[in-house]
Amino acid sequence: MKTIGRHLIAEYYGCDLALIDDVGAVERMMHAAAAAVGATVMASAFHRYAPQGVSGTLLIAESHLSIHTWPEHRYVAADIFTCGGLDPRPGFALLARELGAADRRMQEIVRGLPEHVAEGRALMPSDVVVLTGELH
Amino acid sequence: MKTIGRHLIAEYYGCDLALIDDVGAVERMMHAAAAAVGATVMASAFHRYAPQGVSGTLLIAESHLSIHTWPEHRYVAADIFTCGGLDPRPGFALLARELGAADRRMQEIVRGLPEHVAEGRALMPSDVVVLTGELH
Repeated sequence: MKTIGRHLIAEYYGCDLALIDDVGAVERMMHAAAAAVGATVMASAFHRYAPQGVSGTLLIAESHLSIHTWPEHRYVAADIFTCGGLDPRPGFALLARELGAADRRMQEIVRGLPEHVAEGRALMPSDVVVLTGELH
Repeated sequence: MKTIGRHLIAEYYGCDLALIDDVGAVERMMHAAAAAVGATVMASAFHRYAPQGVSGTLLIAESHLSIHTWPEHRYVAADIFTCGGLDPRPGFALLARELGAADRRMQEIVRGLPEHVAEGRALMPSDVVVLTGELH
C-alpha cells in the first residue's frame, strides 16, 4: 500500500458554545464526519475538561480524526487525516455545518514517502499543499 | 485560556521495521514522547493492522499526539499538537531516536484564534509556519 495521505487541518470560529462543550454531541459529530469521508472507525477516545472544553480522537483504518474545543472562545481545531484514497473534505464541510461555525479556515497537506507524494500529486485539488518542511 | 497551539507534523523515513510493527513498542514510545514535552496523558487508543502497521493516538490535557506506521516502507507519520505553552519539539527528537529513523522531516504550524496567534507569534521559533489557508 502506498503511504500517501491527505491531512486536512481545520479551524472553526464562532461555533455553538453549548454544543462544543457537550462531549456526547462532539463525539457523535466526529463519527458523522468519519462516515462522511467513508472511513472505518477502529477506536475512539473523548474527554471533557473542567471547567470547559472537549477533546477527542477517532482512530480510523485510514489514519485518524481529532478535535479540540474552546467553548469560551467558540473556537474548534479539528484534523482529518486519511490515506487509502479517501477524500477528507466532505468531513470538513460536515463539521462546519454541525458546529454552527460562523467562519472557518482549512489547509490540506499531503504526507508520505516523497516518491509516493510525487506520484499522487496529480490527483490532489489545486490548493493542496505538499509538506515541504526543512530537515531538522 | 488562550487558544494558541503548536502543531508539529513529522515524517520519519528509514525506520526500524520490526519496531514500528510492534504495537506495544509504538505505544511506549508515544508515552515517552508525551513525557518529553511535559504533557499529561488522559486517554490512549492503539491498533495493529493486518498484515502490518500500527496506528495510535494519545489524548493529552494539552491536545494530542498521533502516529501511523507503514513497516513495508519503513515510514512513520506522527503529529504532536500542544497548547498551554508546551514545546512539542523535544517529542520530535525523541521519536527520531526511538524509531531509528535514517531521515526525517518536520513542519510546525501555529493554530488558534487569529488574535491569539498574532500575539503569540513572537514566542515561536523562526521556522514555525502560521496557518494561512484559504477560506473554503
